[in-house]
Amino acid sequence: QTIIKICFRFEVLNINLQNKPDWFLSKHPEGTVPLLEHDGKVPYLVPDSRVIIEYLDDAFPETSILPREPYLRAKQRYDANKLDSVCSTIQKVSYLTRLSGNITTLATELAVAEKLLETSFYSGTTPGLPDIVLYPFIHRLHVIRQFVRDSFLDDYFPNHFPKLVKWFIKMRTMPETEVVREPEHHLKAFLISKAKQNATDFDIHL
Amino acid sequence: QTIIKICFRFEVLNINLQNKPDWFLSKHPEGTVPLLEHDGKVPYLVPDSRVIIEYLDDAFPETSILPREPYLRAKQRYDANKLDSVCSTIQKVSYLTRLSGNITTLATELAVAEKLLETSFYSGTTPGLPDIVLYPFIHRLHVIRQFVRDSFLDDYFPNHFPKLVKWFIKMRTMPETEVVREPEHHLKAFLISKAKQNATDFDIHL
Repeated sequence: QTIIKICFRFEVLNINLQNKPDWFLSKHPEGTVPLLEHDGKVPYLVPDSRVIIEYLDDAFPETSILPREPYLRAKQRYDANKLDSVCSTIQKVSYLTRLSGNITTLATELAVAEKLLETSFYSGTTPGLPDIVLYPFIHRLHVIRQFVRDSFLDDYFPNHFPKLVKWFIKMRTMPETEVVREPEHHLKAFLISKAKQNATDFDIHL
Repeated sequence: QTIIKICFRFEVLNINLQNKPDWFLSKHPEGTVPLLEHDGKVPYLVPDSRVIIEYLDDAFPETSILPREPYLRAKQRYDANKLDSVCSTIQKVSYLTRLSGNITTLATELAVAEKLLETSFYSGTTPGLPDIVLYPFIHRLHVIRQFVRDSFLDDYFPNHFPKLVKWFIKMRTMPETEVVREPEHHLKAFLISKAKQNATDFDIHL
């Protein structure tokens, strides 16, 4: 199977969230991340990860993630919404120095993600919106597992979630996710700096 | 200006949320409302109000609320998201017997809605996604004001929010909202039953 995708040139700029730069706030006074700047005829500024995904889908229909059929689109949007609490739980967990207190919540949420995975991907036989929404968070969990010394994560992830692990391996080796993925040693160093210090080192490895 | 809209036949079925009927749960085991059943070639079941709106937009592009242009679509989606906490605050307030304790939160949220309203509608000169998302909640607040005896709501709504009030009057008299709006005396009776009793009367006026 040949994957034909249009390639975009892009640059990632990390923002120090504890000391947001002026140039960023002047572009986007609300100061939220992520923010997409897309240079079309005019530079468009699109905030909010979910809004960015749907924007790219609308702007580049030839490489869209969402299907064209209205009901299948609705189903993917609904399934992506159902994964929201899994994503926000992993987000919270990854900001904590000590993770063990939240392991029950994490396990419950991962069980939800495991249960919803009825086919090879959340959207059927090819990745769709729910897959794209969930992937960066499971990837972060995978990196956390590598640097956390105690074995609490091994007790839950991946052992209890065989479908999720199979899905993760497939998602991780897709050319599309490989291209955009932050190098794992950067993410690892960043997460360690967060867990060990009061002040997160937003400039690590940059 | 002539408004040309395709008319759909629809039927509203209210669900007793404290005792969900079996026919409903067998259609939609998660039991959430609202749920749209759309009889196309096959009967499609679409849950979640926001997903329903985007589904109808995709299924009937000739009467769509969202514009076609990707950036304007993204902007409307982002603005609709920003109104989410206003909507959920009004939702919570409308389920309380005594409202006075939450008036500060409500006032703060309404101030957000007032501030975001920079043109006649949230989306410019014509109603768009944020307008459609917010309207039913402001309408509910309007009905609450009519039956709550004390003057706390008058202190805040509408007096402090002139733009929001002007917007509400315009939205309320649109043929599209008039057609789908629940009769105000039904909504009023329903809200009174909720405020006065432990058990809400889901069958009131039906």
